[in-house]
This record gives sequence, C-alpha cells and structure tokens, in this order.
Amino acid sequence: MSVRITPAAESDVPVILGFIRKLAEYEKLSHLVVATEANIHTNVFGANPVAEVLLAYWEGEPVGFALYLRNFSTFLGQAGIYLEDLFVDPEHRGKGIGKALLIRLAKIAVERGYGRLEWAVLDWNTPSIDFYRGLGAVPLDEWTAYRVTGDALSRLALGDRRGT
Amino acid sequence: MSVRITPAAESDVPVILGFIRKLAEYEKLSHLVVATEANIHTNVFGANPVAEVLLAYWEGEPVGFALYLRNFSTFLGQAGIYLEDLFVDPEHRGKGIGKALLIRLAKIAVERGYGRLEWAVLDWNTPSIDFYRGLGAVPLDEWTAYRVTGDALSRLALGDRRGT
Repeated sequence: MSVRITPAAESDVPVILGFIRKLAEYEKLSHLVVATEANIHTNVFGANPVAEVLLAYWEGEPVGFALYLRNFSTFLGQAGIYLEDLFVDPEHRGKGIGKALLIRLAKIAVERGYGRLEWAVLDWNTPSIDFYRGLGAVPLDEWTAYRVTGDALSRLALGDRRGT
Repeated sequence: MSVRITPAAESDVPVILGFIRKLAEYEKLSHLVVATEANIHTNVFGANPVAEVLLAYWEGEPVGFALYLRNFSTFLGQAGIYLEDLFVDPEHRGKGIGKALLIRLAKIAVERGYGRLEWAVLDWNTPSIDFYRGLGAVPLDEWTAYRVTGDALSRLALGDRRGT
C-alpha cells in the first residue's frame, strides 16, 4: 500500500470542494465557506486559472489534496509556490500522505525553477507546525498578514476611510 | 499637485527594480536582493506573467510602486489581490501616495470581482501598520507563514528530511 499523487482533473471538482469543507471544519471555520463547484471550476480549470490542485490517493480513494498558486519574490526575482490549502483525511494521517504532497510540490517548484515554497499555518495547530519544521520549513515570525475584505474593500475602492 | 497612478510599461523595468532595492533598504534586507532586470521583465511582462505593477507619479516623476499578484480564497471560492510590495520614496511620504496606490488596488479588486486585498507587514513597521489599519485592514494575527527555500527546498524535492 502506498500513496499516489496526481494532478486533479475537471471531474474532481466535487472532491476538491469536499476537501475544502473538511479543512474548514478542522480549522473551525466552516461558517466562512461559501465556495461553490462553479467557483472552483472557474479558478482551477477555467480560461485564466489562478490555482492548481494535487490529489492524494490511498488504495484508489482520494484521501487528501493540495491547492496551490504562484507567488513572486521581488528580492529573488523568482516565482514560487504558495500552498493555499493542504489537507489529509484524519483517518489517513500518519501514512506519509501530507509529506508526499509537500515533496511533490517541492519537486514542481524545483522543476519550474522557482525559489520558494510557502504557506501559512494557524498558530494553535502545533501538530502541523512540528511536521513542517521537520521538513525544513522556517517560520516568518516577524511578518503579519493584513486583509481588506467585504464592505471595507468596497469603501477603500471608493477612496473612503473607515469610520469617517 | 497631485498623484497619478498608472500601470507600469515594459520600459519601466529599471524603475521597478530601483524601487525593489529601495524597499529592501528600508526593510534592512538589502543583502537578500538578487533580482535582475531580466527577472522582472520575465515575471511582469513575459508570456506567462505572475505579477502586475502600478507606478505612482508626483510632478511627472515616479515616486512609488505597488507590485501585486492574484491569490485565491478556497473558502470564498474567489480570487483576490496579494500585494507583494508597496513603496513610496521617503521624501514623498505624507502626500497620500501610498493611499492612492491602495485605493487603486481596491478598485481593481472590485472591478475584477475579487473578494480580498491582502499583504504582509513587518511587525516593527508601526507607521505602516497604523496607516493600514486606518484604511480598514485587519491583521490575521493567528496565522504564521512558513517557507522552504534554497537547499532545504532541493532536499525536500528529493524526499529527504532535514537533518537525517
């Protein structure tokens, strides 16, 4: 028995959305998931795709996924891989499936001449953090991400300041 | 006198690289900059570009820039804008140039039907943090970015674990 990693096909959209929902559940963020199969299809398999997806199979069944994008380091002058989502079904953890997905992503990065593989982790998720550190990942502790979304994004687009 | 924001042209590559170097200097990270004009040209103006650039002009002179990418929220099922670099020449700060760049990015996000505008800030950069919060940005305090790069990336691609 071993893991098989393969790029997702268009017919896998329901499987991908299923994993997104399971990941949200694990992150205690299910209430935030509004993505639809049509959204995933457009952004992964559409004319101008932003994301790519790998699926992990165990005994012929899909048991995990990685959804990733290109990012860019202006200091290196090189593109990189940004791993947006990584998920393995809880009942299939400990079999090296997450590691196999990360190894495949590192291979893709090297093959494409990219300089980095990056992702973000919830600070309370210590099992994942230990796992990532064991693979050679280093935390970018001195950086914090900021986000403008929803009404604040619409207001900013109009040039308005918050609260004024 | 006012600011003018415009998409960069191919002939602006030296200007863009100049701003990248000035930003690195401000972040005390100049030793990490190895990008070349060829790198920037490929990734912004090549056949498969990963980044886009806005330039800010004051009295006809380029005084700042924003380099941005597409990212993707699997929860929203929507693309977004990830602002990789934002920089305004120190002698032109306080004139609303950074704000004008962010407003333009918010407009682009709204026009494209994107759900978010995001970026990362160094934790010691309190003037920038105050500025961003004033525009409606919220910190994603509970997340930390992890990175695999250089030799660690090559080792991971070969399936090796660090230190084994």
